[in-house]
Amino acid sequence: MSKKINSFLRSDIASLAEYKISDSENMVKLDAMENPFNQDLSFKIADSFENSANLNRYPDANCERLKAILRERNKIKNNYEIIIGNGSDELIQLICLAFLKPENIVMSPAPSFSMYKKISNTLNLKFEEVSLKHDFSLDTELMLEKIKELNPAIIFLAFPNNPTGNLWSKNDIDLIINQANGLVVIDEAYGAFAGESFLSDIDKYENLIIMRTLSKIGLAGIRVGYLIGESSLIQNINKLRLPFNINSISQKVSEIYIENETFVQEQVNKISKHKKDLIDKMKKIHGIMVYESSTNFILFKILNGSAKDVFRDLLSDNILIKDVSDIEGLEDCLRVTVGSENENEQFIQSLKNSII
Amino acid sequence: MSKKINSFLRSDIASLAEYKISDSENMVKLDAMENPFNQDLSFKIADSFENSANLNRYPDANCERLKAILRERNKIKNNYEIIIGNGSDELIQLICLAFLKPENIVMSPAPSFSMYKKISNTLNLKFEEVSLKHDFSLDTELMLEKIKELNPAIIFLAFPNNPTGNLWSKNDIDLIINQANGLVVIDEAYGAFAGESFLSDIDKYENLIIMRTLSKIGLAGIRVGYLIGESSLIQNINKLRLPFNINSISQKVSEIYIENETFVQEQVNKISKHKKDLIDKMKKIHGIMVYESSTNFILFKILNGSAKDVFRDLLSDNILIKDVSDIEGLEDCLRVTVGSENENEQFIQSLKNSII
Repeated sequence: MSKKINSFLRSDIASLAEYKISDSENMVKLDAMENPFNQDLSFKIADSFENSANLNRYPDANCERLKAILRERNKIKNNYEIIIGNGSDELIQLICLAFLKPENIVMSPAPSFSMYKKISNTLNLKFEEVSLKHDFSLDTELMLEKIKELNPAIIFLAFPNNPTGNLWSKNDIDLIINQANGLVVIDEAYGAFAGESFLSDIDKYENLIIMRTLSKIGLAGIRVGYLIGESSLIQNINKLRLPFNINSISQKVSEIYIENETFVQEQVNKISKHKKDLIDKMKKIHGIMVYESSTNFILFKILNGSAKDVFRDLLSDNILIKDVSDIEGLEDCLRVTVGSENENEQFIQSLKNSII
Repeated sequence: MSKKINSFLRSDIASLAEYKISDSENMVKLDAMENPFNQDLSFKIADSFENSANLNRYPDANCERLKAILRERNKIKNNYEIIIGNGSDELIQLICLAFLKPENIVMSPAPSFSMYKKISNTLNLKFEEVSLKHDFSLDTELMLEKIKELNPAIIFLAFPNNPTGNLWSKNDIDLIINQANGLVVIDEAYGAFAGESFLSDIDKYENLIIMRTLSKIGLAGIRVGYLIGESSLIQNINKLRLPFNINSISQKVSEIYIENETFVQEQVNKISKHKKDLIDKMKKIHGIMVYESSTNFILFKILNGSAKDVFRDLLSDNILIKDVSDIEGLEDCLRVTVGSENENEQFIQSLKNSII
């Protein structure tokens, strides 16, 4: 790169790391909270192509049909609106863009979903982390204090939290929402597995947005997330959305998927059952500590030896999980996504061999 | 929206307009530079679904296969790299993000593609427009002067230009690239119709990026654009890209599409021939001035009467074109996308009826 160009680039760019994705070809892939079941909707999708793909035309810029289906299924009232995003990532970016002022602060408990911080940083928004307690519950007293002190414009709360897997207390979150002058975004990416949501509470607050995604319940490949919030706020945020951000096929596939919710719910139940079995088996392994999970993944700590060694042992058995041991507060920890019965069994065997 | 939240929102948000998309259901749609031919690849696409859709898995975060195909087809050398974007819009945003510093200026001739300005504004980057000459050619002298004076970090040059449709002189652009210390982005969205490109000249410069899209040649529905530039620059820009920005299906469909380039080229040839016929017919209509076009659309001026009246007359005949008469420098102008023979004929008849 020429020196001239370099002088115009943002000064933090050299120090930014590329988002690293592990090579997972032919691996038992338990690293990314995907639904292990390949979707059996391919015939329906293929059908919809043969009838009217119309890929030569721009997509519906406002995803009207998809939003109508989401509204109906989630029983969303008329004074609330929806924005569809190219995954939650784009929605986080969009929210941050709406609050892009030099004095604004974004806040989140830590450890939590890494993109809150990463995206805030790329937009030069100040980001403040408030450490969780040792059991990964919210340090509510500290949060309330920090909110008073820093008056954040946006607070991201993952409900349940990633990468810890636990569900914070609704009472604690209620205190936070009430204390905050700014926006509170409840990220329910894993909500289907927790069985709890703030959607039914949305009327209680003036500053709440709910964020969801189809990625964890079976459609990671199509990249669709959505926001639900009070109409005038959502309308304002929507002005910053790039038109045509959701392609025609992702719209169509999401519609088909949401219209088959029984099928989705059955898979969620199956994954939740597999999780319970997996946790039971993991708890019997000496030398690791297993954390409770309200999600489709399990965090566990290596008590004797090194998390990195265990990670590598699993890798050499062709099993890919997530090494989170470099994250502050998660020293010696690893994270495994719940897979199919067979995948979970392979993981358990490999883990046992590594720990012993 | 609560007053509290409002105080955190960016102050320009109330004045921002939502991107308006005209309702086009059941219309002869000649407003958006789409390829009029529905793609006959649906069987191949459907096939690829039935074999391995894997929509439960995250997409390839780096679009390796798609990039390899683009590299091969475009004969891109090893010291250049590619970024795939969710349409050109996301790529414009990404470039702006890489140069997000308070002192940086983005520059573009005007009128040109509206998203350069819109996206710069949403990122609070200063945006400077340099007016085109009356015949829509570059005012090169003024551009060079402004570059000297303002030292822009990014210059966007649409080659050919939208919404004017003409192709600027390569010599003029050469002078601009050489004068600029910052990055010059050559936007070749309509390049397939112009038959000219800066790709073969990329070695001559240190500050050139080429941007392309599949939207105008037949795949507006899947939202795929790409950047080609010198490796270290592209690697830096890539750090700001949201991972998984391109869903699995858009990757797969693009791959199939690019691998069938003969088919694409035939359609481009057909559209170019239709355009020639359409221009010939339009030139025979008194009371309008037709501009030359190196794209798949035609700009024309209403000499007697009002462009808005003509636009509305066409609309009442169920024909949707683009009213660009509110854009400075394009007073009394309308823009029509080249459609199928039948669509073009309907447009001509309706236009004749309106003008007479």
